Amino acid sequence: MQSDINAYVSTLEDQLITLRRDFHQYPELGWHEIRTASLIAAELARNNIAFKLGKEVFKVEDRMGLPSQAEMDENYQRALEQGADPEYAPLLKDGFTGIVATIGEGSGPAVALRFDIDALPIMESDEADHVPQAGGFRSVNDGVMHSCGHDGHAAIGLGVCKTLKHFESELKAPVKIFFQPAEEGVRGAKAMSNSGELDNIDYLLTGHIAFKAKSSNTLIVSTDGFLATSKLDAVFKGKSAHAGAAPQDGKNALLAAATAVLNLHAIPRHAGGFSQINVGKMNAGTMRNGICADATLLIETRGYDSAINEYMEEKAQRILKAAADMYDCEVDITFEGSAASGDSDSEVADVAREVAAEITEYTEISEDPNFNGSEDATFLMSKVQKQGGKAGYMMFGSEIAENHHHPRFDFNEVSIASAVKLVSGMAIRISQK
Amino acid sequence: MQSDINAYVSTLEDQLITLRRDFHQYPELGWHEIRTASLIAAELARNNIAFKLGKEVFKVEDRMGLPSQAEMDENYQRALEQGADPEYAPLLKDGFTGIVATIGEGSGPAVALRFDIDALPIMESDEADHVPQAGGFRSVNDGVMHSCGHDGHAAIGLGVCKTLKHFESELKAPVKIFFQPAEEGVRGAKAMSNSGELDNIDYLLTGHIAFKAKSSNTLIVSTDGFLATSKLDAVFKGKSAHAGAAPQDGKNALLAAATAVLNLHAIPRHAGGFSQINVGKMNAGTMRNGICADATLLIETRGYDSAINEYMEEKAQRILKAAADMYDCEVDITFEGSAASGDSDSEVADVAREVAAEITEYTEISEDPNFNGSEDATFLMSKVQKQGGKAGYMMFGSEIAENHHHPRFDFNEVSIASAVKLVSGMAIRISQK
Amino acid sequence: MQSDINAYVSTLEDQLITLRRDFHQYPELGWHEIRTASLIAAELARNNIAFKLGKEVFKVEDRMGLPSQAEMDENYQRALEQGADPEYAPLLKDGFTGIVATIGEGSGPAVALRFDIDALPIMESDEADHVPQAGGFRSVNDGVMHSCGHDGHAAIGLGVCKTLKHFESELKAPVKIFFQPAEEGVRGAKAMSNSGELDNIDYLLTGHIAFKAKSSNTLIVSTDGFLATSKLDAVFKGKSAHAGAAPQDGKNALLAAATAVLNLHAIPRHAGGFSQINVGKMNAGTMRNGICADATLLIETRGYDSAINEYMEEKAQRILKAAADMYDCEVDITFEGSAASGDSDSEVADVAREVAAEITEYTEISEDPNFNGSEDATFLMSKVQKQGGKAGYMMFGSEIAENHHHPRFDFNEVSIASAVKLVSGMAIRISQK
Amino acid sequence: MQSDINAYVSTLEDQLITLRRDFHQYPELGWHEIRTASLIAAELARNNIAFKLGKEVFKVEDRMGLPSQAEMDENYQRALEQGADPEYAPLLKDGFTGIVATIGEGSGPAVALRFDIDALPIMESDEADHVPQAGGFRSVNDGVMHSCGHDGHAAIGLGVCKTLKHFESELKAPVKIFFQPAEEGVRGAKAMSNSGELDNIDYLLTGHIAFKAKSSNTLIVSTDGFLATSKLDAVFKGKSAHAGAAPQDGKNALLAAATAVLNLHAIPRHAGGFSQINVGKMNAGTMRNGICADATLLIETRGYDSAINEYMEEKAQRILKAAADMYDCEVDITFEGSAASGDSDSEVADVAREVAAEITEYTEISEDPNFNGSEDATFLMSKVQKQGGKAGYMMFGSEIAENHHHPRFDFNEVSIASAVKLVSGMAIRISQK
Repeated sequence: MQSDINAYVSTLEDQLITLRRDFHQYPELGWHEIRTASLIAAELARNNIAFKLGKEVFKVEDRMGLPSQAEMDENYQRALEQGADPEYAPLLKDGFTGIVATIGEGSGPAVALRFDIDALPIMESDEADHVPQAGGFRSVNDGVMHSCGHDGHAAIGLGVCKTLKHFESELKAPVKIFFQPAEEGVRGAKAMSNSGELDNIDYLLTGHIAFKAKSSNTLIVSTDGFLATSKLDAVFKGKSAHAGAAPQDGKNALLAAATAVLNLHAIPRHAGGFSQINVGKMNAGTMRNGICADATLLIETRGYDSAINEYMEEKAQRILKAAADMYDCEVDITFEGSAASGDSDSEVADVAREVAAEITEYTEISEDPNFNGSEDATFLMSKVQKQGGKAGYMMFGSEIAENHHHPRFDFNEVSIASAVKLVSGMAIRISQK
Repeated sequence: MQSDINAYVSTLEDQLITLRRDFHQYPELGWHEIRTASLIAAELARNNIAFKLGKEVFKVEDRMGLPSQAEMDENYQRALEQGADPEYAPLLKDGFTGIVATIGEGSGPAVALRFDIDALPIMESDEADHVPQAGGFRSVNDGVMHSCGHDGHAAIGLGVCKTLKHFESELKAPVKIFFQPAEEGVRGAKAMSNSGELDNIDYLLTGHIAFKAKSSNTLIVSTDGFLATSKLDAVFKGKSAHAGAAPQDGKNALLAAATAVLNLHAIPRHAGGFSQINVGKMNAGTMRNGICADATLLIETRGYDSAINEYMEEKAQRILKAAADMYDCEVDITFEGSAASGDSDSEVADVAREVAAEITEYTEISEDPNFNGSEDATFLMSKVQKQGGKAGYMMFGSEIAENHHHPRFDFNEVSIASAVKLVSGMAIRISQK
Repeated sequence: MQSDINAYVSTLEDQLITLRRDFHQYPELGWHEIRTASLIAAELARNNIAFKLGKEVFKVEDRMGLPSQAEMDENYQRALEQGADPEYAPLLKDGFTGIVATIGEGSGPAVALRFDIDALPIMESDEADHVPQAGGFRSVNDGVMHSCGHDGHAAIGLGVCKTLKHFESELKAPVKIFFQPAEEGVRGAKAMSNSGELDNIDYLLTGHIAFKAKSSNTLIVSTDGFLATSKLDAVFKGKSAHAGAAPQDGKNALLAAATAVLNLHAIPRHAGGFSQINVGKMNAGTMRNGICADATLLIETRGYDSAINEYMEEKAQRILKAAADMYDCEVDITFEGSAASGDSDSEVADVAREVAAEITEYTEISEDPNFNGSEDATFLMSKVQKQGGKAGYMMFGSEIAENHHHPRFDFNEVSIASAVKLVSGMAIRISQK
Repeated sequence: MQSDINAYVSTLEDQLITLRRDFHQYPELGWHEIRTASLIAAELARNNIAFKLGKEVFKVEDRMGLPSQAEMDENYQRALEQGADPEYAPLLKDGFTGIVATIGEGSGPAVALRFDIDALPIMESDEADHVPQAGGFRSVNDGVMHSCGHDGHAAIGLGVCKTLKHFESELKAPVKIFFQPAEEGVRGAKAMSNSGELDNIDYLLTGHIAFKAKSSNTLIVSTDGFLATSKLDAVFKGKSAHAGAAPQDGKNALLAAATAVLNLHAIPRHAGGFSQINVGKMNAGTMRNGICADATLLIETRGYDSAINEYMEEKAQRILKAAADMYDCEVDITFEGSAASGDSDSEVADVAREVAAEITEYTEISEDPNFNGSEDATFLMSKVQKQGGKAGYMMFGSEIAENHHHPRFDFNEVSIASAVKLVSGMAIRISQK
């Protein structure tokens, strides 16, 4: 069976690479993936694959870190100009850039697969030896780049859809394929996981290109130790006054924010496990000689598990409020993203191991017991696990030119077909359990 | 007239020096002046001078910075052992160590005089060339010393009482003489000024030995620019926890207090005039490996005028409360002392000038336009000024061995008689206006 | 004599208002006054008035807060497009937008007059009842506005030049007229005052429209109490690192800057007189999940006199360096502006009083003993005072629509002619002393 | 064999309890264990056991957190008065209160055993139902208490010495028994571990009464996850000045220390594993109206392993120095204690398991994978492990009345004999390997 899959996927390899390069050339930031998602939808339609998209596949109020309406409007126009599918684009508009495809039926264990599709606010290298530059598919969108490999994830997802459609008769249960927006900043998964689309799902498979699997012969079948995280924005509002003539009339938002910064970092760490906090950005004030009336902090907390992250987040909120109060300011705190803690189930790893044994590219199999980072796939994983199902997070090995999020990041495209073989094989095998 | 006064005072000089040395040898801290005040009372009685003392001359709740009951009990015992008058001591007990004597009558302008009588928590020098040591009247109370000259003030006050009694027939109005406790820390004046004893007073005269008048030929007839000040204690209560095993269970009073310290010092200064704040002392915690549950700050604010001081004090309170709240602690803020801003009236300075012209010791007369410190005599001054009266603060010139508050502070005792001549003469002259 | 001056100035009034409106419509920020200064130069040339401009009238290295070369290039182009004089513009290029005109000769006391000519980064109101909008001379340069009246100062300066030229024979000494750039941010005066152009000057006259003289009948003949000030930028450089995966590898510039902010505001204030500090702006970091590697603070200190300001500035530098060191960062501190403390001489005020007595518009004459703000005219004033001369700072009364620096600021144009009469009359009178 | 040991130990039980109660009644703080150690030495001598003590068993300069000479002198006197052995006491004087006994010989694996003997600065409960109170052996040393069971450890150590002496012929190698002072505050072990006495040791066995083994039937055979820790004192020296009259002349040690406190707590935590910091105590300043010139911080850092602790400690030192520099103060940093990270070897656990199987009291055997605290036994453990040996840390189960370090702490004395049986049996068995 797996050898049939392997053979079929090999016939797709060139078109998947073409797709990946197209996505790479037109990268879109989280919640702006109009072109990307509309082309995925069109491709699914061309392959007679059923799918839902847009508002149907999100719990609307659980979307986090949405851009402004103006930004969404502008990016929508650009997407249309750059070839977004005019039929599907309107359905994805205004922050609904996700798709759930369904293939197969039956009473076997239902499987969900998840692929993320967004790019990063990074200016791609234009050095001659950077492969996308040399290959003519460097980003045309200034300051936006697929430097985390989600262009590859999108291509893998489409490859898996095609393969499962081809072998649909082997599926003994429905398989749902999630194309998820806005993984960067951990903003998109929560709303998809709470959409109802995961009800009745027994297995959730997902993963990432490369990371700790840094050769295309390597497969990490199981990843544990995802950190829970929260992303908060705090906006302080004070009152301006002339710093020379009447400082006593002001309400100093800059002092409030600076006090918050120090005390946020000083939160006593939880003895129950790893906990972190970072204020990564602060903007405050407009002029030297005025008492600053506005300050903004971008904050993230992390915890070994969701309870510890919640401890950090609650302390952070208390500190922000007290720091504002100290200077008679107001503070507005908004949640811009979050991810749960998470671990993979060994049962999924076992299936991965079995299937990988029949894929010649994968010669080294291992596990990662300690991811020590955050991924919002954990929302889908924990949703399925809480309803009694199993989840697994894999790393699809690939040689990379530079680390993820680097302007010269690039991966070995042979990894696309290998991953399609693996995930398709796993989905079929699980459905037959 | 003044020459008669001068001649009389000269006959008192030796006994006033003896009194001063006795007070010097048995110094008592603020609110503990049991021996000092009881001996003053006894002396007044011996001279048939009417006086009130104890609870009658205070607004009870306006006393600030009272010692603990245990300290008061202990000092009371010591006072008795050291010769406090057994008739008056009980009336002065528990923080009521003030006296108001009254001499003269008539419908002329009523005059009040004020002398402060407390010592400082300073260990007096025992070096052989320190005059009190050489003269055998060094402090016998370990760690307590008259190093600001209030022993001299007490002697001057008694000298003035005797002199006015002697010339009582010249007085055309009642003169009230206030012996005030607890000037150090600006704790005692407010309660005496609000006792009702200043009602109907038209002139308030007070002053200090030396300070900026550093020779016994010098008299400063007018002092302006007293800073308003408040003395606050802040006690933070948090919750202890093991710093290694469960820091998350603690409420960190040390972090709350450290945050308060920085932000107190960072209060935007008032553009309307000089403003200051100082946290002079902080004690927090008991052990290295525990989350600190208790922290205490000793704070003072100062302002060019009382409104600016109030601005600083209100900001300070807000900061203390928010810092506590930031770490889920409680904070208890108590007022340990305060003084108003203040200036002298030129009319009083004119009288001083006239009288001094007839006292041969005073050959240099000047004014101090900018005291730039605090004194709680300002409460009595501003009380009288607000009811339409006039007030004056003088500096009685004297050579000093070291600066005020120094372990080797000492002044030239010839200044005692000069000051008695001056103040007595002024009181009589004013009553005759 | 003054009546002749008054009569002549009245004939200029319309053209001065036209000039003011032209300057108002084409406002230029500090060091960008290419069009403004080149048109002033052309006007001087047309009137046969001798002048120097550009590099000759600056001490090059004392210019502070220069814009970037790119900004200067861009503004230069705009100035040319908006009618800058092509002969003089090249001489003013790259931050040399000042002029010194000279009229008269003789051995009388040499007089210098100073007028500042720059605008502010403020978006001018476009409300229908805002006079420049209604009158069709609202700023055409987006976000730049003459909202402090320096357009009026430039017009007054030209009016004085024409008047003095007209009455040149009355001048018994040379009068130098300084047109100074970049007063906003106190950046331009130091370099002009140290250029050598003030050598041998005996009197320096300058002033401002309105401020505390809020009716056109009012003249303030003397201003005291200018605060010394320094404007500092501090740029912290740290090292970025992933906040989740490797915070220990970063050097946190945001924590360094926040620590600096609190401690800058906490500098113990000087007891010798008023002192202030403000951090008005802070920008730090680029993303939530990175250790921040770059932070910038905009700081100003003020002091009652230059020594106290220097105390604040030195403490600030120490704190900035230590805060950087605390997080293993570098900090680069640059001076973006400064002004000295200063007072006016009563001799100049007396001349102003005499001349004003002959100008019917001025019916109320007063003095301002406490400016409580900063102005870089103090550099020129103190330069002249230090070489034994006298200086005076006046306020030319005018009704204003809103306070200085407000988007709806506007002043009553009748004030222009009154000020020209006054300053011209004073210069002639002084030269005749 | 073990049954012989068990039987012999049972005959010692009463005298071991008597010894423990004697140690309990005369508790001594770290480095003051003159009476305790001298009586242990005397007991060893009475049993003809060879031992070294005092300077011979320490690397002198590695002793940390030594009390002042005055405290040592005072405690020495008290020890003599309370029955210290006059022969040995002088050898233990001045912070050399350790002993190393040696029993057996041969070429088998050499074993070291370590018992700590110091008490805590805690006031023991005098409630009637507190066993030591009821039993008449409550601490007679006010404010000092054996509330961590080291009195039991000393008794166990002596019991093991007697037992091994009794079965000396069974020993196939020398066994060294360390009696260590000053474990509290992790101050004593480093100097003993670096004394040379551990050279050639192949196995190190140590442990603690109770902790996580809270019934006398329980034995924890292996403890992992000791946190590395450092104990630092930081003393800031600034310069005093009058807060009202001349704050600008001071160097504010309180502001320096408060800044350090916030930034110490704000050290970005290491992603490589658990890291903590705590400032548990701060004392600064003497009076409200003075710029504070002296401040002291008591600090501890902890890390998952020694490298991470070192990271925290280095950052802490940098922050302390920069905070001092920020206010032109000096800071003196001293190390008052430290412990390494550590894990037990399974080979030792296996021996413990085998021996325990023959001791009827131990019915529940387990392991503690995560101690999450610090113990300076880790210095001896890691010394032996680094030279190729094995180490094990056990917990000897016992019912306790209250948690360790509580005024009502007490343990079940039956645990003494059980631990003696176990440790003696293990030493013999290992020596025979």
